[in-house]
Amino acid sequence: MKKLINKIDDVVPEQLDGMAKAYPDIIKVHFNPDFVYRADAPVKGKVALISGGGSGHEPMHGGLVGMGMLHAACPGAVFTSPTPDQMHEAARMVNAGAGVLFLVKNYTGDVMNFEMAAELAAAEGIDVQNILIDDDVAVKDSLYTAGRRGVGTTVLAEKIVGAASEAGYSLKQMADLARKVNVNGRSMGMAITSCTVPAAGKPTFDLPDDEMEIGIGIHGEPGQKRMKMKTADEITEMMALSIIEDPPYSRTVREWDKDKAEWVDVELTDPPFKAGDQVIAFVNSMGGTPVSELFTVYRKLADICDKKGLKIVRNLIGPYITSLEMQGMSITLLKVDDEMLKFWDAPVKTPGLRWGV
Amino acid sequence: MKKLINKIDDVVPEQLDGMAKAYPDIIKVHFNPDFVYRADAPVKGKVALISGGGSGHEPMHGGLVGMGMLHAACPGAVFTSPTPDQMHEAARMVNAGAGVLFLVKNYTGDVMNFEMAAELAAAEGIDVQNILIDDDVAVKDSLYTAGRRGVGTTVLAEKIVGAASEAGYSLKQMADLARKVNVNGRSMGMAITSCTVPAAGKPTFDLPDDEMEIGIGIHGEPGQKRMKMKTADEITEMMALSIIEDPPYSRTVREWDKDKAEWVDVELTDPPFKAGDQVIAFVNSMGGTPVSELFTVYRKLADICDKKGLKIVRNLIGPYITSLEMQGMSITLLKVDDEMLKFWDAPVKTPGLRWGV
Repeated sequence: MKKLINKIDDVVPEQLDGMAKAYPDIIKVHFNPDFVYRADAPVKGKVALISGGGSGHEPMHGGLVGMGMLHAACPGAVFTSPTPDQMHEAARMVNAGAGVLFLVKNYTGDVMNFEMAAELAAAEGIDVQNILIDDDVAVKDSLYTAGRRGVGTTVLAEKIVGAASEAGYSLKQMADLARKVNVNGRSMGMAITSCTVPAAGKPTFDLPDDEMEIGIGIHGEPGQKRMKMKTADEITEMMALSIIEDPPYSRTVREWDKDKAEWVDVELTDPPFKAGDQVIAFVNSMGGTPVSELFTVYRKLADICDKKGLKIVRNLIGPYITSLEMQGMSITLLKVDDEMLKFWDAPVKTPGLRWGV
Repeated sequence: MKKLINKIDDVVPEQLDGMAKAYPDIIKVHFNPDFVYRADAPVKGKVALISGGGSGHEPMHGGLVGMGMLHAACPGAVFTSPTPDQMHEAARMVNAGAGVLFLVKNYTGDVMNFEMAAELAAAEGIDVQNILIDDDVAVKDSLYTAGRRGVGTTVLAEKIVGAASEAGYSLKQMADLARKVNVNGRSMGMAITSCTVPAAGKPTFDLPDDEMEIGIGIHGEPGQKRMKMKTADEITEMMALSIIEDPPYSRTVREWDKDKAEWVDVELTDPPFKAGDQVIAFVNSMGGTPVSELFTVYRKLADICDKKGLKIVRNLIGPYITSLEMQGMSITLLKVDDEMLKFWDAPVKTPGLRWGV
């Protein structure tokens, strides 16, 4: 294993410390429990948006903390859920009295730990809600998940819902918006190479020199299928069509009912894409794939969307939700309306995403 | 070789086409000869800033075209100098009558072809100047270069000099500023893995599983030395000290004398860093190294600068001057004054770098 790291145990804390040193005007880092939070938190009168998850996906989530996006992010060990105390302490730090929205990627550990954190916060009188992101069309259940995994739509949700917080949305309004983003976003990923978790010291999986894995997760967990390497156009078409032609997807999620002080079931259905939809197209590097190759993917994706009658009104191209140094990419399409677009375009200033300021 | 590409011959044109499709409000792409240019070019009353070089270093240069940075960029084949007709045609496209500054990385082919382009443009009455970037402290002469190679400082120069153009600087003022940036910037790179040039189909070099190469160039050309892999802190210290303790570096470069209509020798000396200097610290991924690992490097770099009395007043951390999917990183330190800082902070809107708009 060759990586730019020091001791295995120090990998995540040193990366967090480096981020804190690099962006003192944007973020601060709290250790024990670990979380990244806005340098100007709590932001008076605004609902706090918090996310988190295993490390190894940078810039998500810690690099997406800042004005117009997350108020705090809780990093677990590499590819490992953060613990409830991290989210609980982060909530206490950034809550400005208007409540806290937890954006949670759908992995069993994350869901459980964010729920425990929400209960702890609620017990202290903090107004909370948890909204799940489960947008990966590749597999239903997986090693890490019941239901669809939470992947690329998370980044877009953090941007859009974070801007809504800046605009003064209430917790209920932000939760409604986050849920809307989730049901309108679909993603799929693929890998050319594995990544190596520092503590493991060897690649998560082996992939022959002429093969790729389609539908892979951001932790290197298995995807839909392995196959011989294909051209960028063929890969892009396969993935884009899986996303665009995905049928309505229904499931039950749990949200917090403040009055009952308990979790209640909420039925959700992702509407299918249809001609005439406006979308944000997000082409993401898994970490080791350079941006130049993403442009070849985007080129084909734009053609396919055009043929399918989907109008790409905004895009995001680069490494935003990564899997360490894995080579590969993911595609996310998010159907947007005027509300979502307005918040997408709003100013943002984070280490990993910045415009307008 | 596994890459997200289609036919080998189509790699660069398809990537350019993808960029054009992704950022139509920022850039346009001209084919035959190939160049990327500002969608709003020529920009009335402003001196045009043009750079270019082999492809494979994205986002540099094509992804750094836009308001506040480059007016045009000329991409060669992967790791191959662009031809004079590319720069000549780009100059004709973006020249607004106020002249054209060519920023040229110091590689033999680039220097020669940018000089030919300047002569062609000058012969048509376009006011031109060529400023060299030669900032790599690792090796003096190399396979590709007489003198020091042009690397990371190029990105910082494009930002600063591009902003000066927006501010209405004359060609002479922009050339003076670009020269000042170059002599005050120093860089060094390292690699953990090789990259694979698509047309070659196999890695440029072999590096054993426990070795790294220090002082490597952005084309995978040999560096100072190979050694056993070390910790991120040890690597960062070795490279940072090579940069910070680099003695004054003198050489002769050629610049265009408009009145004589010929190239004249200019003597340049890079002043050494000294305690009290203000610097921009740039930690760059070679393409395959994820941003998370760069934070570990930045953390140590900040400590070293602090100990050496260098004050990091701004930073840039990410993949900006890459070498395809090579794993590794480079460090650039640029001593800045108020003029440079003002232009660094100015708004920029390019595919690869954006703030303030």
